Amino acid sequence: MLRTHTCGELKIADIAKNVTLCGWIQRSRDLGGMTFIDLRDRYGITQLVFNMDNAAALCQQARQLGREFVLNIEGTVTERSNKNSKMPTGDIEITVSAITVLNTAKTPPFTIEDATDGGDELRMKYRYLDLRRNVNKTNLELRHKMSVETRNYLHEQQFLEIETPYLIKSTPEGARDFVVPSRMNPGQFYALPQSPQTFKQLLMVAGYDRYFQIVRCFRDEDLRADRQPEFTQIDCEMSFVTRDDILETFEGLTKHLFKKMKDIRFDSFPRISYDEAMQRFGSDKPDIRFEMEFTELNNALKGKNFKVFDDAELVVGICAKECAFYTRKQLDELTEFVRKPQVGANGMVYVKYSDDGSFASSVSKFYTDDDFHALAELMGALPGDLMLILAGAAEKTRKALCELRLEMGSRLGLRASDVFRPLWVIDFPLLEWDDETRRYYAKHHPFTAPKPKDIPLLETNPAAVKANAYDLVINGVEIGGGSIRIHNKDLQKKMFAILGFTEQDAQNQFGFLMNAFEYGAPPHGGIAFGFDRFCAVFGGSDSIRDYIAFPKNNSGRDVMIDSPSEIAEQQLNELNIKIR
Amino acid sequence: MLRTHTCGELKIADIAKNVTLCGWIQRSRDLGGMTFIDLRDRYGITQLVFNMDNAAALCQQARQLGREFVLNIEGTVTERSNKNSKMPTGDIEITVSAITVLNTAKTPPFTIEDATDGGDELRMKYRYLDLRRNVNKTNLELRHKMSVETRNYLHEQQFLEIETPYLIKSTPEGARDFVVPSRMNPGQFYALPQSPQTFKQLLMVAGYDRYFQIVRCFRDEDLRADRQPEFTQIDCEMSFVTRDDILETFEGLTKHLFKKMKDIRFDSFPRISYDEAMQRFGSDKPDIRFEMEFTELNNALKGKNFKVFDDAELVVGICAKECAFYTRKQLDELTEFVRKPQVGANGMVYVKYSDDGSFASSVSKFYTDDDFHALAELMGALPGDLMLILAGAAEKTRKALCELRLEMGSRLGLRASDVFRPLWVIDFPLLEWDDETRRYYAKHHPFTAPKPKDIPLLETNPAAVKANAYDLVINGVEIGGGSIRIHNKDLQKKMFAILGFTEQDAQNQFGFLMNAFEYGAPPHGGIAFGFDRFCAVFGGSDSIRDYIAFPKNNSGRDVMIDSPSEIAEQQLNELNIKIR
Repeated sequence: MLRTHTCGELKIADIAKNVTLCGWIQRSRDLGGMTFIDLRDRYGITQLVFNMDNAAALCQQARQLGREFVLNIEGTVTERSNKNSKMPTGDIEITVSAITVLNTAKTPPFTIEDATDGGDELRMKYRYLDLRRNVNKTNLELRHKMSVETRNYLHEQQFLEIETPYLIKSTPEGARDFVVPSRMNPGQFYALPQSPQTFKQLLMVAGYDRYFQIVRCFRDEDLRADRQPEFTQIDCEMSFVTRDDILETFEGLTKHLFKKMKDIRFDSFPRISYDEAMQRFGSDKPDIRFEMEFTELNNALKGKNFKVFDDAELVVGICAKECAFYTRKQLDELTEFVRKPQVGANGMVYVKYSDDGSFASSVSKFYTDDDFHALAELMGALPGDLMLILAGAAEKTRKALCELRLEMGSRLGLRASDVFRPLWVIDFPLLEWDDETRRYYAKHHPFTAPKPKDIPLLETNPAAVKANAYDLVINGVEIGGGSIRIHNKDLQKKMFAILGFTEQDAQNQFGFLMNAFEYGAPPHGGIAFGFDRFCAVFGGSDSIRDYIAFPKNNSGRDVMIDSPSEIAEQQLNELNIKIR
Repeated sequence: MLRTHTCGELKIADIAKNVTLCGWIQRSRDLGGMTFIDLRDRYGITQLVFNMDNAAALCQQARQLGREFVLNIEGTVTERSNKNSKMPTGDIEITVSAITVLNTAKTPPFTIEDATDGGDELRMKYRYLDLRRNVNKTNLELRHKMSVETRNYLHEQQFLEIETPYLIKSTPEGARDFVVPSRMNPGQFYALPQSPQTFKQLLMVAGYDRYFQIVRCFRDEDLRADRQPEFTQIDCEMSFVTRDDILETFEGLTKHLFKKMKDIRFDSFPRISYDEAMQRFGSDKPDIRFEMEFTELNNALKGKNFKVFDDAELVVGICAKECAFYTRKQLDELTEFVRKPQVGANGMVYVKYSDDGSFASSVSKFYTDDDFHALAELMGALPGDLMLILAGAAEKTRKALCELRLEMGSRLGLRASDVFRPLWVIDFPLLEWDDETRRYYAKHHPFTAPKPKDIPLLETNPAAVKANAYDLVINGVEIGGGSIRIHNKDLQKKMFAILGFTEQDAQNQFGFLMNAFEYGAPPHGGIAFGFDRFCAVFGGSDSIRDYIAFPKNNSGRDVMIDSPSEIAEQQLNELNIKIR
């Protein structure tokens, strides 16, 4: 090794040792007769000192060196007169006896500091410099440790990590598949997997009753703020299990990660049904770091001649504790918030329950104080609280109130990024009706099993059938989801019929899996976690991009390597394709 | 769980326990009043017993069940009267009290046995059934354990596993890139990585001084017997290291794997130079499980009027110990062997040194007994040994003799698959001259560093320059290879000039890496192991395909899912491409 120690490890106990360090110049300072250089590597920063009095030549040399130069230095560990208790190496410095410049550096286009002066685009273009910043290093270290601990836990639980292929088959439903032309099979294409779903089910048929893989997945969709065309899943499947076995196993994984990464311990995670989640929080991924649950108010507020409520399918509200002091301006801000297109309400009604017991409301001319007292009781509001009410079509209104609830949670500081509240959402609907195409679609995928007690409903009322499906939600973010799969041929056929597949369609699209199911498929189910997002939640961040070493931008481009890009005509020829 | 135990764990100590097992019917036997079923899961096989005397209905039910049916059974652990010491569960059987058929199965198209009756094509088509066979399960378990132990070691050594992108940029030299049309960027393509080489070098520039990744790589080349279009690498890079640091670190990994997987311990691995390997074994990946080293015989055998030798650039031989008894037929076989096109010799000369001290040879009319005595001494041959000699152009002849040496090693049982002899081959040539295009090509890649002492030769005699490159070879198989990389801009420019790149070419092809090198690149180097092959060597197999869950055939096809395949016109439209 070109070094004896890293820049993060020398302490007071190392005083007088002769050491060799390697690293980058973080900054340098000339103070009269002394020059100081902070030398940085992956492990930390160590201060180097040069003194004009007793090492003038070396000190002169040091003064010529620019930021981000790569150095190899020899020297002696010395106690600092001016200790820095904020740095792990802050008690010592190195009195340098020799410098070797391992490489020079142009001045970086932005500062390599936590509070950098570089904008997003610039940092993405020079991602290799951005990655030198402490925040990114911490994120990638967190990601590494998450993968280590995930594997430790699953290995301990007898899961086998089995690699599935990346060059697979495109299916007609796979409109968002990335495809790969095959040179050896002209006119034919592979597809990159959106997930290893079918392969992991085949592994269950093959008898590998506990499979996992930390695996890249690909989806060619129009990218929203926080999507990436390639992303990583912790993909898992088990045989001979019930739903509760799966929930317990992966609740175990989640607890293991919280313990190892954060030293946080949990009791059992709450489990709430999809219906209940929608009713209490207006969301199938509720943030339960705070309460502020929905109260349905149709009975309480309809029939008092306030037309907006009377005409509404649903009147529903939340109670913001101790917010009766909200000003006109603050309430106007909230009204503006709910009217934003992505929230979608027409307006908001407030009822202030003042400390003195009086009520003030935007709809006071329709309601008596008795009405408001009854409302307050229903909503659990006390003097000093603020009630916020939306009305309209049920689904849309719940969604809007969910956004308002989250906004209020943020405003009130109830959504701290270092507080974690995981839960399971269970009993999702099996099917979604699409008015346009007038058919049912699988909410999850066509291999998701209905809840056994609902199977008879498949004939009579498919929309009412619940799936044996579940999501793990942490702090309002869906971290993982899965289901018990259908393993019975007849049930699978019925499912395809409900989804409007002919037998021929089903065979074309899912033939090899259907065939496999003829040869002794065990009962099985699984789950997949969005690993990028799991890391982001643990890191207390909203952005998965910060946890990916080389992410793509919102147009699916890697601006550092300038990809995608055109390819040579000759290469297109070999692949038997043409640009249209 | 639908089971209390697996089919691999019940022992004599469990007698009288009530248990529930799940699994597949491996086989069943009716013996008069008794029926036996072997129930199989991932963990083993347990015998179930049904008795007509005291459980007639159940016994009848059991007799209806076919091979590979999936069962859930309840019963009591009973001591076997007829113990089977070859089975871990051979002391017990289950007296069954209830059967639930979890799933039926069609009769599989081949037997699920070690010695199956299914041919290769059929087993690939029904890979999910093939994977039920013990041999494949063992292979995938070995692969899992190899990955666990690789990660344990590297994590312990402070390596970070960092995921690099799969959707990257095609380069003009990347003629064997798989490409991926971008829907969002019409007319543009991503490429799938042949290796994460440039990204791992960028991570070194970014300061992540110990990186690794177990990562899929892609190469669209015409497939030879044991190549796959997608394969897995253990990809590693380190900064602030010398070559020897890298060799020690990854010799450490290899030893760790041998200890954990095989309980085999090694002293230091031999290191031999490329030149020495070629001279002693005619190969840069010598199998050193046995000696039979080359002896160069130009001085000994030329000038005696045997024209074949006199005209040859190189006369070279091996001594096969105690093979003087070889018959005419055996020697003819060897001659035929060396004449095969893939071996490429014109003929073979033998000299038998009989036990009685006499010589017999295909060229005895040209040489005296004294000549043969001198030859024997040179080759270390004793009475009873057989000398085999080839002659011709040096490189071709060495290659042919290498094949003959391996053939003799196999014939003599000197290449046992449970004996392992790792070594490092070092000091490869940096450049290869291509007569056709009249230019040098990088033997490894253009970022490989020359050995420091050879740098002056770059100006005067590029062909003589050795690279700071190394391969790990086990039993004649190249398991890994790597190099110290160039991190100095000027040296890199000189290298590109030697390789015939204009500055513009270099910038177009490697611009982002060249740019990164301007901002403080540390000295670095690395290695990549072929993980599939590493597993195969540990498993004692020649075939990587046996260690891949879902491999492709020699045409790059997955015959199970029938991929690659045609895609819909609409999808081609969306991707802005046409079939030519």
